[in-house]
Amino acid sequence: MAHNIVEEFNAYRSKMNEKLLEDNNKILKRIFNLDTNAFTEGTLPKKTKELLGLGNSLVLRCDDCVRYHLETCYNLGISKEEVVEALSISLLVGGTIVIPHLRRAYEYWEALQTQDV
Amino acid sequence: MAHNIVEEFNAYRSKMNEKLLEDNNKILKRIFNLDTNAFTEGTLPKKTKELLGLGNSLVLRCDDCVRYHLETCYNLGISKEEVVEALSISLLVGGTIVIPHLRRAYEYWEALQTQDV
Amino acid sequence: MAHNIVEEFNAYRSKMNEKLLEDNNKILKRIFNLDTNAFTEGTLPKKTKELLGLGNSLVLRCDDCVRYHLETCYNLGISKEEVVEALSISLLVGGTIVIPHLRRAYEYWEALQTQDV
Amino acid sequence: MAHNIVEEFNAYRSKMNEKLLEDNNKILKRIFNLDTNAFTEGTLPKKTKELLGLGNSLVLRCDDCVRYHLETCYNLGISKEEVVEALSISLLVGGTIVIPHLRRAYEYWEALQTQDV
Amino acid sequence: MAHNIVEEFNAYRSKMNEKLLEDNNKILKRIFNLDTNAFTEGTLPKKTKELLGLGNSLVLRCDDCVRYHLETCYNLGISKEEVVEALSISLLVGGTIVIPHLRRAYEYWEALQTQDV
Amino acid sequence: MAHNIVEEFNAYRSKMNEKLLEDNNKILKRIFNLDTNAFTEGTLPKKTKELLGLGNSLVLRCDDCVRYHLETCYNLGISKEEVVEALSISLLVGGTIVIPHLRRAYEYWEALQTQDV
Repeated sequence: MAHNIVEEFNAYRSKMNEKLLEDNNKILKRIFNLDTNAFTEGTLPKKTKELLGLGNSLVLRCDDCVRYHLETCYNLGISKEEVVEALSISLLVGGTIVIPHLRRAYEYWEALQTQDV
Repeated sequence: MAHNIVEEFNAYRSKMNEKLLEDNNKILKRIFNLDTNAFTEGTLPKKTKELLGLGNSLVLRCDDCVRYHLETCYNLGISKEEVVEALSISLLVGGTIVIPHLRRAYEYWEALQTQDV
Repeated sequence: MAHNIVEEFNAYRSKMNEKLLEDNNKILKRIFNLDTNAFTEGTLPKKTKELLGLGNSLVLRCDDCVRYHLETCYNLGISKEEVVEALSISLLVGGTIVIPHLRRAYEYWEALQTQDV
Repeated sequence: MAHNIVEEFNAYRSKMNEKLLEDNNKILKRIFNLDTNAFTEGTLPKKTKELLGLGNSLVLRCDDCVRYHLETCYNLGISKEEVVEALSISLLVGGTIVIPHLRRAYEYWEALQTQDV
Repeated sequence: MAHNIVEEFNAYRSKMNEKLLEDNNKILKRIFNLDTNAFTEGTLPKKTKELLGLGNSLVLRCDDCVRYHLETCYNLGISKEEVVEALSISLLVGGTIVIPHLRRAYEYWEALQTQDV
Repeated sequence: MAHNIVEEFNAYRSKMNEKLLEDNNKILKRIFNLDTNAFTEGTLPKKTKELLGLGNSLVLRCDDCVRYHLETCYNLGISKEEVVEALSISLLVGGTIVIPHLRRAYEYWEALQTQDV
């Protein structure tokens, strides 16, 4: 079942992103473009950038954004310990209000691991 | 099925609003009252006010508030292009953290259109 | 059915909290510890502290945090009227963007009451 | 000098509030009205309500709102220890991002005490 | 003196924007570009877009962003009454936490008017 | 003059932190303790952690927190280019509402550099 969280999230995300971009709204298209751009290898390595995206997302309490960056972190081979260290900084900075999102982050990470089995 | 999102949202919203107002808490009642008041025709036309309500809701990342104002916009005959332009400003101001809410906004707008068929 | 909201929430919360703490991340463990600590009887009575936790949670628009504090308030014997007064201050301070969370707060409180029947 | 923070804050606040209300905008006037209303004695005592206003303000990181409620707390005779307990809950809930506002809250409280000397 | 708020704000803003763009960071440059782009005449008239920018800024409680959009609104000939109506919607949506920013918005608007005399 | 921003910030910060900790409030003391703890070398290197602290602070729009982490980054020898890359991710995630804080971040970084001359 954990498997489904990942699949469902990605299916919905892809389907709706397509619809967002169909409209040819310039702002939307460029922001999406920049989003891809911002996380490519730069002076900072890709891994650091993904951890930054993850940390920012948790502190802003956006479950879907957390999921997205958890998945990219996972695919880049970042270890759970590294991910948890980044998340723990966001917990401290953002306070206990962040905890419910942390629970869902753990659930998603577990689902990513289960998926590979 | 898209149809159901709209119906479900409105049914839950009405049912719970009734319960909120049953208690006769003065603050709650007056805030609800003001909420109706604020979006009536004024120096600014109703449509502009609804777009403002929509834009504010997206930037504050409140899905239910976005849905509510999308529906009012829809009923006022505001076009999808106008709505998307307002949403795109909120995306720029609020950043990519807003994207998941934008996806759900698009889904709801589609459901509003489907409902009429 | 209302009964289930409470049970489901608590079951998920306990299960995931356990996983969060299994990792032995120092920050996570200490924040959880402090969270227990902060709401014990102090110069301020426990009830006031729970109302503060509730009010803060609503204004920050965290449904799960609101639920958690509603339940503790309920178990401490705080009346619905007192709870609603605290919530109404958060509504005023936080604005109408808070309303959807207020609806869900009312639903949860009702579920807590139903559970006892 | 600490004396001046209090005086300056209140002078600016009064002067500008007057201008806000001069316009006869209905929403503004009613919100201001509700704001007075919400903190009067109710089922919850005035002191608890002021602590709620203070806690909500800190967690939302609004220095001026924190100052306003600190002053009302001070005038109601709430002790520093009680105020700090309320603030500490907001620190925990809101995270370390709250610390700079806590520093300014302490400075204002000190200014309130100095003023009386 | 009111005159100075406007001049100071714009001088600092221009000076620092130049430094931000000197670095040739792609994300920064494109976001700045989009920012210009988003507020040009579109399906929605320029005035509506500026009011949206203003409303979003107030609800997110960013004084500098509010000032920037107030100034553009002023230069587009939007009346104070229209501006206040937009601001009042943001006050209702965002809650009393918005009031200190509203005070500073009024002060800036007054400074814009004084400047012309 | 740029020199003064750094000195003033640090002097105020130290003076007020001392007062915060004098009170012996357990929550405050432990949060401060954790704050030191969270940014020590771990599975993630110190530099990555500081960049995370910086990114989180910008996205939450806390000028003082940004300043604090900029200074630690500077002292760890992180280059301006690396810092700007981290900031640019926060700009994209957090939106244009972040720009005024970015201006002040640049000003502070410049002050840090000037200080060394």
